[in-house]
Amino acid sequence: MTTLTSESLQRRVDAAQGRIPCDVVIKNVRFLDVFTCKWRPGDISIIDGCIVGIEPGLKGKREIDGTARAVVPGFIDAHVHVESSLMMPHVFDAMVLPKGTTSAVCDPHELANVKGVSGIEYFLEQASELKLNLQVMLSSCVPATHLETNGGGKVTAEQLVTLAGHPHALGLAEMMNVPGVLNGDPEVMAKLLAFSNHRIDGHCPLVRGQALSAYASVGISSCHESTQFEEAQEKLIKGISVWIREGSVAKDLNELVPLLNLANSTSVGFCTDDRNPKDIADEGHLDFLIRRAIAKGVSPEVAYRAASWTVARHYGFRDRGAIAPGYQADLVMLSDFIGCEIAEVLSQGRLVSELEFSSSAPTSFENTVLMQTPEAKDLEGPSGQVHVIVVEAGKIITGRKVDAHNAPGVARLSVVERYGKGSPPANGYVSGFGESFEGAIASSVGHDSHNLIVVGQEARDMKVALQCIKEMGGGFCVVHHEKVLASLPLPFGGLMTSESPESVVSSLRNLHEASHSIGCQVPEPFLQLAFLSLPVIPSLKLTDQGLVDVDKFSFINVSAA
Amino acid sequence: MTTLTSESLQRRVDAAQGRIPCDVVIKNVRFLDVFTCKWRPGDISIIDGCIVGIEPGLKGKREIDGTARAVVPGFIDAHVHVESSLMMPHVFDAMVLPKGTTSAVCDPHELANVKGVSGIEYFLEQASELKLNLQVMLSSCVPATHLETNGGGKVTAEQLVTLAGHPHALGLAEMMNVPGVLNGDPEVMAKLLAFSNHRIDGHCPLVRGQALSAYASVGISSCHESTQFEEAQEKLIKGISVWIREGSVAKDLNELVPLLNLANSTSVGFCTDDRNPKDIADEGHLDFLIRRAIAKGVSPEVAYRAASWTVARHYGFRDRGAIAPGYQADLVMLSDFIGCEIAEVLSQGRLVSELEFSSSAPTSFENTVLMQTPEAKDLEGPSGQVHVIVVEAGKIITGRKVDAHNAPGVARLSVVERYGKGSPPANGYVSGFGESFEGAIASSVGHDSHNLIVVGQEARDMKVALQCIKEMGGGFCVVHHEKVLASLPLPFGGLMTSESPESVVSSLRNLHEASHSIGCQVPEPFLQLAFLSLPVIPSLKLTDQGLVDVDKFSFINVSAA
Repeated sequence: MTTLTSESLQRRVDAAQGRIPCDVVIKNVRFLDVFTCKWRPGDISIIDGCIVGIEPGLKGKREIDGTARAVVPGFIDAHVHVESSLMMPHVFDAMVLPKGTTSAVCDPHELANVKGVSGIEYFLEQASELKLNLQVMLSSCVPATHLETNGGGKVTAEQLVTLAGHPHALGLAEMMNVPGVLNGDPEVMAKLLAFSNHRIDGHCPLVRGQALSAYASVGISSCHESTQFEEAQEKLIKGISVWIREGSVAKDLNELVPLLNLANSTSVGFCTDDRNPKDIADEGHLDFLIRRAIAKGVSPEVAYRAASWTVARHYGFRDRGAIAPGYQADLVMLSDFIGCEIAEVLSQGRLVSELEFSSSAPTSFENTVLMQTPEAKDLEGPSGQVHVIVVEAGKIITGRKVDAHNAPGVARLSVVERYGKGSPPANGYVSGFGESFEGAIASSVGHDSHNLIVVGQEARDMKVALQCIKEMGGGFCVVHHEKVLASLPLPFGGLMTSESPESVVSSLRNLHEASHSIGCQVPEPFLQLAFLSLPVIPSLKLTDQGLVDVDKFSFINVSAA
Repeated sequence: MTTLTSESLQRRVDAAQGRIPCDVVIKNVRFLDVFTCKWRPGDISIIDGCIVGIEPGLKGKREIDGTARAVVPGFIDAHVHVESSLMMPHVFDAMVLPKGTTSAVCDPHELANVKGVSGIEYFLEQASELKLNLQVMLSSCVPATHLETNGGGKVTAEQLVTLAGHPHALGLAEMMNVPGVLNGDPEVMAKLLAFSNHRIDGHCPLVRGQALSAYASVGISSCHESTQFEEAQEKLIKGISVWIREGSVAKDLNELVPLLNLANSTSVGFCTDDRNPKDIADEGHLDFLIRRAIAKGVSPEVAYRAASWTVARHYGFRDRGAIAPGYQADLVMLSDFIGCEIAEVLSQGRLVSELEFSSSAPTSFENTVLMQTPEAKDLEGPSGQVHVIVVEAGKIITGRKVDAHNAPGVARLSVVERYGKGSPPANGYVSGFGESFEGAIASSVGHDSHNLIVVGQEARDMKVALQCIKEMGGGFCVVHHEKVLASLPLPFGGLMTSESPESVVSSLRNLHEASHSIGCQVPEPFLQLAFLSLPVIPSLKLTDQGLVDVDKFSFINVSAA
């Protein structure tokens, strides 16, 4: 980012009035005026990364013909865990910026669960190295609950406050501890109080009525967890901005996008939350959400406003999210604005197609899978009638049922504490992976504590899968008959890789093929698996400490006898 | 304002869920949801001044029947000089809060011109004493120009920065030095740079094209000085929020209000700027602007959104401007929302009709009229063909012409430095006060340096008027045949009084009657007079140092021979 000085302000004033040439002028475009939600003809003139003109008349050292291009403000991801892309920040940068995501509001709580405050600090440091504008919400719930074991320990209000002044720190990240809020938990209240002059992001799936009012009353002003139209509408009315999420598992766009209209377009935005590189490669990033929203009937002007200015304004980015003098030249040039077909992206006035992205980054945070691999027999849950987690593809909310432990379609599920504290595996059951599912699928990405999670029919396959993850220092694998069919190492915190996006996508395709070859019916098994240990999402989850009834926020026996 | 604590957050959570009673519940209302711009039925429940519920179901220690009431968020004046109300802040508070103005963004540059930084500090201190939410933009242009003499000297960037952290300091007030911006004046750039992380208000009448782009490019994000539809539209497109002003002299609403629609209603707000107590009493404050806007065809939902949430959002008031949990209960209960008929106002949950307003305030800043009264002969300008300021009623922009000094309708105009520096009066000519105008009208309110200004036909009447002002320590008077017909003392900085609004209004009526009795055709002579020495408003003005050609930003001779 260019540091602002008196001289740079002076240069803007001079360039705007034609006294010195601009760096870049994009000529003969139509651009979206987000303030009035109308397309305007003009030239976009830029100096030092900042827009200084929108009318014809200025000269640029470089002039770009924008004929037949519609230009919109760069897209802003309102809520994303970069770790869920499986890519280190500099790789994420290189992958999503060409897709028009010029700003992102991230919550680094995955790495923070693994490594504590140093995980947050890492993202704050990396933010200033990236080409895209990364802003960091400080993780509010590490660990997510008291019902699980993480590696980073507890991140306290005091620790967060020391980070609040960092130029890339934006506010308090998703407050997932809904019971803590509703019960006035002192630690939660202390965090809310400490950030009462900042933005506080919410996370309140299915919370309605008086509980939602209570949640909003403490200053929480956004939520990306709505899955129902009426739920999202109630949040809007209660002053909670709605970020429509379309991740790799959680897909809410079809349900929520009918909500978005001109009147509320300043309170509804888009986010990806958890989106894997295969989906980013195949479908896109925010461009996919916009394309889909327009296809579902949202007016293009409203969709592009929601994807940019709305989020900028919510978070107080005074110079992002619009095409006007004084705004950073984060621009998406579209060859087709209905289809959100991107011809070129500019980030602070630089053509993204010409940028050299960093190809390396610090290799700290390795060696985080520290437990002993359990024996197969230690991965077997109780027999007989058991509580079964019911997975539905594309949803992170689970159902629940009671069934025989060996009923058709019921598989074993284990969560293994990975930080070397020596506790035994937690073993349970899950359905939804398919009646002909065989072998095992394992991962070191298990929200939010990122213990190892493994699903399988045979405990001995599950043991091999866990051993494979341990040897890779974290990652994904698919095992059948005690053989590893496919794997992807994620050595960085057990969450991320520095491999190229193409390489990661190729590995993911192999993993998906392998998982389908062993009868897995879930199209995205690793991200789906990752949410099975997250006890802040209803309704039945398994952590390293046992089976959690999320509705009661307490443990229950696996055995239902 | 209630200080936020963990305990108060806890009380909100408990009240929202019915565990403890609310302080106040307004039952059976329709309220405006500004997020979606729709009316919603509900109950509004309040504890500790904060809204904690909008649905029926909570009990209050006090319950108010809201049947047949439409409730809207309290109005926010986007730009006001409290001094222009002629009332000290606590009196202003008592007058405008019952009219629904629950927040105001003020610029104390009138007092700052008289008393320097201590004038700004006074408003910052007073802000925490008032019932309404007063936020202070730090005066950017004291003195307004180098073409006049003020009492407070120069307020520097360094001085402003020391005030920026005050809880009631909001940003940098109207940047009136347009030439300074456009020419990259180092002092101006230093101020803009120092406040680049805050909101910076603009002031750019008639600025268009590349000059407007240059002005916006340094981060200036609002303007309340648009007088033309196309001018305002260009500002909106360039990212400058438009505050539609209806003051006592400057009346822009009829021209600008057709601009306001649902699409841009998050970038267009209302302000009063300079509005005298007579107009506040007779017509109203922001309620008058809203009433008029609706009458002119703006949809009520859009008008009320513009008057509240839009301005709150622009300035980053996270808990004002909406009716939702977590927002301060600044509410206007309307018996008729089309006519903006106010039944009751709540300020932070308290009924304004029951509030005890402060009846006294510090009496510092007296004795600020320090000059020797000039002799009559010293108030005579040159004879022959002269440059004449042409006043048009209701406009602060003046015209200009060359005419004989004694042509019909041309009157004498003098500005007398009042801070005792001993410089001679500046004498010129003005037309527009009427062909049968006799006597003299004088004032110690002369934007922005507040030297004494006097208009008259006979220099001896002008002398008497100046002597009267000096004896009152500041104020207004009307003189005929060397006799004072009416007067209003404004001893506080020569700008304000602590008298009751009723008393001030009564004095103003007497002054208006007296001025009409001596043939003055300008309906609001004192406010009109006050702008004749403001050399940042086109096109010809008189300061204590001489006649200013505002278009060239330099002095010219009064004599046109």
